[in-house]
Amino acid sequence: MKSYHPEELFDEQGRFLPELAALAPKGDRRMGANPHANGGKLLVDLDLPDFTDYALDVKTPATMSYENTRVLGTLLRDIFVRNAARHNFRYFCPDETNSNRLGDVFQVENRTFEEKIIPIDDHLSPDGRVMEVLSEHLCEGWLEGYVLTGRHGVFATYEAFAMIVDSMIVQHTKWLEGALALPWCKPVASVNLLLTSTCWRNDHNGFSHQGPGLIDTALTRKGAVSRVYFPPDANCLLSVAGHCLRSRNYVNLIVIDKQPHLQFLSMHEAIDHCTRGLSIWPWASNAGNVEPDVVLACAGDVMTLETVAAAWWLRQHLPELKVRVVNIVDLMTLYPPQVHPHGLADATFIDLFTADKPVVFAFHGYQRAIHQIIHGRPNAAHFHVRGFNEQGTTTTPFDMVVLNEVSRYHLCILALRHALRLQHLTPPLMQECQDLLARHHSYVRTHFEDMPEVRDWVWTD
Amino acid sequence: MKSYHPEELFDEQGRFLPELAALAPKGDRRMGANPHANGGKLLVDLDLPDFTDYALDVKTPATMSYENTRVLGTLLRDIFVRNAARHNFRYFCPDETNSNRLGDVFQVENRTFEEKIIPIDDHLSPDGRVMEVLSEHLCEGWLEGYVLTGRHGVFATYEAFAMIVDSMIVQHTKWLEGALALPWCKPVASVNLLLTSTCWRNDHNGFSHQGPGLIDTALTRKGAVSRVYFPPDANCLLSVAGHCLRSRNYVNLIVIDKQPHLQFLSMHEAIDHCTRGLSIWPWASNAGNVEPDVVLACAGDVMTLETVAAAWWLRQHLPELKVRVVNIVDLMTLYPPQVHPHGLADATFIDLFTADKPVVFAFHGYQRAIHQIIHGRPNAAHFHVRGFNEQGTTTTPFDMVVLNEVSRYHLCILALRHALRLQHLTPPLMQECQDLLARHHSYVRTHFEDMPEVRDWVWTD
Repeated sequence: MKSYHPEELFDEQGRFLPELAALAPKGDRRMGANPHANGGKLLVDLDLPDFTDYALDVKTPATMSYENTRVLGTLLRDIFVRNAARHNFRYFCPDETNSNRLGDVFQVENRTFEEKIIPIDDHLSPDGRVMEVLSEHLCEGWLEGYVLTGRHGVFATYEAFAMIVDSMIVQHTKWLEGALALPWCKPVASVNLLLTSTCWRNDHNGFSHQGPGLIDTALTRKGAVSRVYFPPDANCLLSVAGHCLRSRNYVNLIVIDKQPHLQFLSMHEAIDHCTRGLSIWPWASNAGNVEPDVVLACAGDVMTLETVAAAWWLRQHLPELKVRVVNIVDLMTLYPPQVHPHGLADATFIDLFTADKPVVFAFHGYQRAIHQIIHGRPNAAHFHVRGFNEQGTTTTPFDMVVLNEVSRYHLCILALRHALRLQHLTPPLMQECQDLLARHHSYVRTHFEDMPEVRDWVWTD
Repeated sequence: MKSYHPEELFDEQGRFLPELAALAPKGDRRMGANPHANGGKLLVDLDLPDFTDYALDVKTPATMSYENTRVLGTLLRDIFVRNAARHNFRYFCPDETNSNRLGDVFQVENRTFEEKIIPIDDHLSPDGRVMEVLSEHLCEGWLEGYVLTGRHGVFATYEAFAMIVDSMIVQHTKWLEGALALPWCKPVASVNLLLTSTCWRNDHNGFSHQGPGLIDTALTRKGAVSRVYFPPDANCLLSVAGHCLRSRNYVNLIVIDKQPHLQFLSMHEAIDHCTRGLSIWPWASNAGNVEPDVVLACAGDVMTLETVAAAWWLRQHLPELKVRVVNIVDLMTLYPPQVHPHGLADATFIDLFTADKPVVFAFHGYQRAIHQIIHGRPNAAHFHVRGFNEQGTTTTPFDMVVLNEVSRYHLCILALRHALRLQHLTPPLMQECQDLLARHHSYVRTHFEDMPEVRDWVWTD
C-alpha cells in the first residue's frame, strides 16, 4: 500500500489535503450531476399526437378484421414528424419494420445507413432515425443508451427474438431500481418493447420462432419498473402505446400480433378498458348482473378471439349457462397489491372473477405463469389456465391453439366440465366439442387451412 | 415458376425423373444419417471414475465447511485423464475456472490458445481442452456443437451470466424435443450447466450479479428435456454430477455455490437422497414418525443452511413444536406427474409435505416460481415460499438472506405464525426473532461482518 504514497495525499492527522480535494469537479461537472450521465435532466416530453385520431371505427364487436400493428406504424410516423426538430425520437427494429406492419414510418423517415447508397437501396440515409439492423443486442443496447441520455424510443421485434436480449433488459431494470433510490437521478423515458409476430401466428415460421419467454422474465422484475400489456385489438394498442410513450422509468412490454385479427372495442370503449387494465365485456357475456356459472378470462389477442368465440358457442348451445367474459390488458393487475403497484384489491378481484366460481383462463404465454401471479388471491385454486405449452410448429392459426389445448372448443369443454349447476346438461355438449376437434384435425390435414366455420367466424347475437 | 424448367425434372405424367432421383445420396451419405449430422451415432460413453472416490468424510451433519465445487474440479480432472485417448470431453467456462474452484483441471489440462505463448502465460496450449473465453455465447454454442457431434462436456458459469445465453438454451431444448420425435436421430450427451457464484454469495459483486433467472427459463421447457438440480453440499454435487454426465438428451442445470458451506450428508446418505430427488432429513427434524406441526422445505445450498439453522433454533426454543425438514435436490419432483416425468405421485407428495400442514419453503430462486410448479398439488395453498426477491447488493452473506426475508429468523417467524396448535406459546418467540433481526441490522452496519452466532453457527444436538 506504501506504493500509493499516502504521505503525498494526507496530512499528519490523516486528513485529505484541501488542495487535492479542491480538484474535484463541482456542480454539473460532477459525474452524477453531469447531464450526459443523468439524462433525465435533458428529457423533453415527446410531442405526441392525439392517439384517438388513429382509431378504427369499430361499430359492432368481433365482426371486422385488421392488422393491429398498422395503426401503431401511423402513430410512429406522426411522432417522427412532430418531433423532427427536437431530434429526440428513434425507432429500433431487427430488420422487420415492414413485416411487422409498421412501414408507414418510411413515409417520413429513413433507415440509418452510413455507407455509400446505391439506386436499389430502399429508404436509407445517414441521418435516418429508423435503426434497423439484424442484431437484437444492438437494437436493445442502442435504445437503453438513447433513453438514458434523455431521449425516447420504441424497439419492435418478433416475440421469440426478444429472449435474445432478456439479460440486457434485466440489467436495465436493475439500473432503474437503483436509480429510483437516488433522488438526484432524474426519471428517464421508459424502454418500450413491442413484441409482435407472436408464437400463435408467425406465417411460415415454426417451433423455433415460438417463444413468449420474455413475459416470464418480466414477471421476476420488481413491480416498481416492470409492465406487461396485452392489447386485444388496434384501438386498445393505441391507448396502451399512448400511455407507454408518456411513462417514465419502466420497461413496458406490449404483446400483440401483426396479422389480421377481429376488432372488439370502439376507441371510447378501449380507453375505458385500458384505463382499468381489465374489465368485464358485457356484450360477450350473458350473465348480466347475476353471478355467472363460469368466468372466461383472457389475455392476448388470439386468446381473446378464442375466448369470445367460446362464449358465443356456449350461448348458442346452452343459453342457460351464465358466462362472464373478462379481458385483461394489464397483466400486473392480477398480482396481489403487495407484490405489484397495479395489483387489484382483493375485493375488486372478487367482483370480477367471483369468490368461488370456476375461471377458465386463456393466456397468451406459458400457462403456469398465471399461477405464479395469482398465488395469494382468495380464489386462486379455481383458476384453470391454458396457454402456450411448447406445442405446434408451422401450421394453421387454429391448429396452433388446438395443439396447445386452448382453442374455443377446449375452453368450452373446460367451462362445461366445471359448471356444476348444469352438469346434467353438459355431457353431450362436451362430446360435440370433441367431435369438432376431431373434424378440425382431419380437415386441416386434408385442406391445409382451417374449417370455414372457424376461419370465417364473427360474432352474431 | 416456369423459370425452374419443370420439363427437365418431371416426365409427362408429372413423375420425378429416375435418373435425377438416383443422384440422391444413399445410406450414411444422407443428411440425417451422416454421423457428422447425427452425432449420437458416434457417441462413446465417457469413462467416468467412481464419484464416491471424491467423497468428503462427513461424520456429523452441518459441522464442517468446504468449498462445494472443489470436489467437482477434481472429478473433472480425472475425467480428462481417463478420456484423453478418446478426445471426447471438453470443459467450457467464461474465464472463471479458478474462481469457481474448479482449478484442479489445470493439473492435467491446459486452456486452448492458438496464438503465440509467452512465459507469463498460465496453462495455455493449442491442444488444451479447457475452453475458457469471456463470452458465454461462445461457450454455450461450442458445447452445443460439441454434444451434437457426439462428444461430452460441461459449461460452468456465474449464475447471473447464464441468462445471457438462455435463448440459445431454449433453442437447444427445442432441437432436442424435435429430435425425440425422430427414431433415426440418435441420443446425444446432455448439455450440463453448472451455475455457481450464485445470487446469495458473490464476494465483492453486487446487484448486477444476482440473477437466478435461468431456472425460470428451464421451468418453461418441456419435461422431456429439462432438469434442475440443487445439490445442498459436496457429496450431493458428486452424485448429481455423476448422473448428469451419464444422461442423454437433457439440459441439466446444476446450481451450487463455490464458497465454503456446511456439509450435511455422508456419501452414502447423499446417494440415497439424490436418487430420491428429495427426502426428509431425520437428524434435522424432531417430529419422528408423527405428523409435524410444520414442514420446513428447502432447495439450494444457502437455503438449506438457513432452514437447518431455523429447525435448530426452533428445537432450542420450543421443543414442543414438531418440525420436519425436507430437502429438495431435484426441483422437477415437485411438478404434478402429468407435467414432468420426475413429478412425484400426489400420495408421495402428501407423505412428505402432509395433506394440510403449513410448509415453509426456502427457495434458491425467485420465490413465486414454486407456486407455478406446485399448482395442482392438493396442498398447494399451504406452501409459504420465500426466496430471491431482487433485494440486496454487495453485503454480508447473512444480510443477503435477511434483505430477501428468507433468513433462519424469518423462517422461524413464518413457522411459528402458522403453527396453530401452539399459538399460545409463539408470540414471545416471534418477538425474539424480530429482536435478533434488529440486532443483526445494527451489528452488520457497525462491524461489516455477520454476528458471531450466525457466522460460526454449526448444528448441535
